[in-house]
Amino acid sequence: MATPVKVHGPPLSTAVSRVLACLIEKDVPFQHVPVNMAKGEHKSPDFLKIQPFGQVPAFQDEAISLFESRAICRYVCEKYAENGNKWLYGTNPLAKASIDQWVEAEGQSFNPPSSVLVFQLAFAPRMNLKQDQSLISQNEAKLEKVLEVYEKRLGESRFLAGDDFSLADLSHLPNAHYLANVADRGEMFTSKKNVGRWWGEISSRDSWKKVVEMQKQST
Amino acid sequence: MATPVKVHGPPLSTAVSRVLACLIEKDVPFQHVPVNMAKGEHKSPDFLKIQPFGQVPAFQDEAISLFESRAICRYVCEKYAENGNKWLYGTNPLAKASIDQWVEAEGQSFNPPSSVLVFQLAFAPRMNLKQDQSLISQNEAKLEKVLEVYEKRLGESRFLAGDDFSLADLSHLPNAHYLANVADRGEMFTSKKNVGRWWGEISSRDSWKKVVEMQKQST
Repeated sequence: MATPVKVHGPPLSTAVSRVLACLIEKDVPFQHVPVNMAKGEHKSPDFLKIQPFGQVPAFQDEAISLFESRAICRYVCEKYAENGNKWLYGTNPLAKASIDQWVEAEGQSFNPPSSVLVFQLAFAPRMNLKQDQSLISQNEAKLEKVLEVYEKRLGESRFLAGDDFSLADLSHLPNAHYLANVADRGEMFTSKKNVGRWWGEISSRDSWKKVVEMQKQST
Repeated sequence: MATPVKVHGPPLSTAVSRVLACLIEKDVPFQHVPVNMAKGEHKSPDFLKIQPFGQVPAFQDEAISLFESRAICRYVCEKYAENGNKWLYGTNPLAKASIDQWVEAEGQSFNPPSSVLVFQLAFAPRMNLKQDQSLISQNEAKLEKVLEVYEKRLGESRFLAGDDFSLADLSHLPNAHYLANVADRGEMFTSKKNVGRWWGEISSRDSWKKVVEMQKQST
């Protein structure tokens, strides 16, 4: 067996948990390397060599270092195409293009408002930071509009990119999990028929349950 | 010759111009379809069928419709692998992973502050909207930090993802162009030795000059 790939960063980080879910779906053995962000380890010279922005995750596969969770997920799917869930990044160019499109929609439309809400509603209270109510309202409204587009899309297909669970769905899990289970905003998903069905289905996947378990064990 | 692909949306849009630059680099014939956004054509039922978020660009290649500029660029590079610039999305999985990583860095780190600045400094004055000085200062500071990481990276390699111009560099052109040439913020790039060299090199590519020409003709 080859050396396991390495994932640097706490599972509580949304971007780290995106990579962990992908590795578990793909059945790729990995070693988890803790990074003590409270002690600023992510800004240390050694860490900056593998993640120049000083963020998590960083990822290593033998001599290769990568950062950016969505790029790492694409790499894992390409490199380990024959492992685990073969539908995760599609089995043909058209399926892949559809998945890419919805991964980008997550990164550009879903993530900006939902990551502000996750920070304001889930992380700020834990860090004893004051919440910004106007920012919360603005981003709830933005996310609501995005989810209305998803509601329509998920009325036409079972998952975002088609009939199969893919990276496009997986990529939403980290932020949606905090919104639904920590920030008490589950109704944003469950009040919509198709989004609610989709959220129920993707959040109950074994891979994601394992990530949530890793998050619990790390607190 | 097959039917040209179609790009819907004005060349003045940063996301549309990203796709146009990619198509020109890949020497893929395209038909440009105007979308009158002032008249709300991007929110019409027919347009929403191909771009459910009501944004530009939308892209069509025979029976396929796609949205999200970076996903469209990846698709164009994969589908037309043998056309034009063969280095644009790498010629092996490792090169592709490095390109993907820096395309994501553009989408997640460079684009958020730079798109706020492009709107505030270049578009708001044209639309007679009041500029938000505090938002401008905040995002100048954020962009400055991102460009400091780029300065280091571009001291190690000629382009972001390695020795060749790629989608990673191309993806920065639309916002950087407005910042340098409309918003009078060129010094953010040229004051840094490596970023300045890089910006000079990527912005003088024939493909990008053609896009700028299309932008001029559309005003």
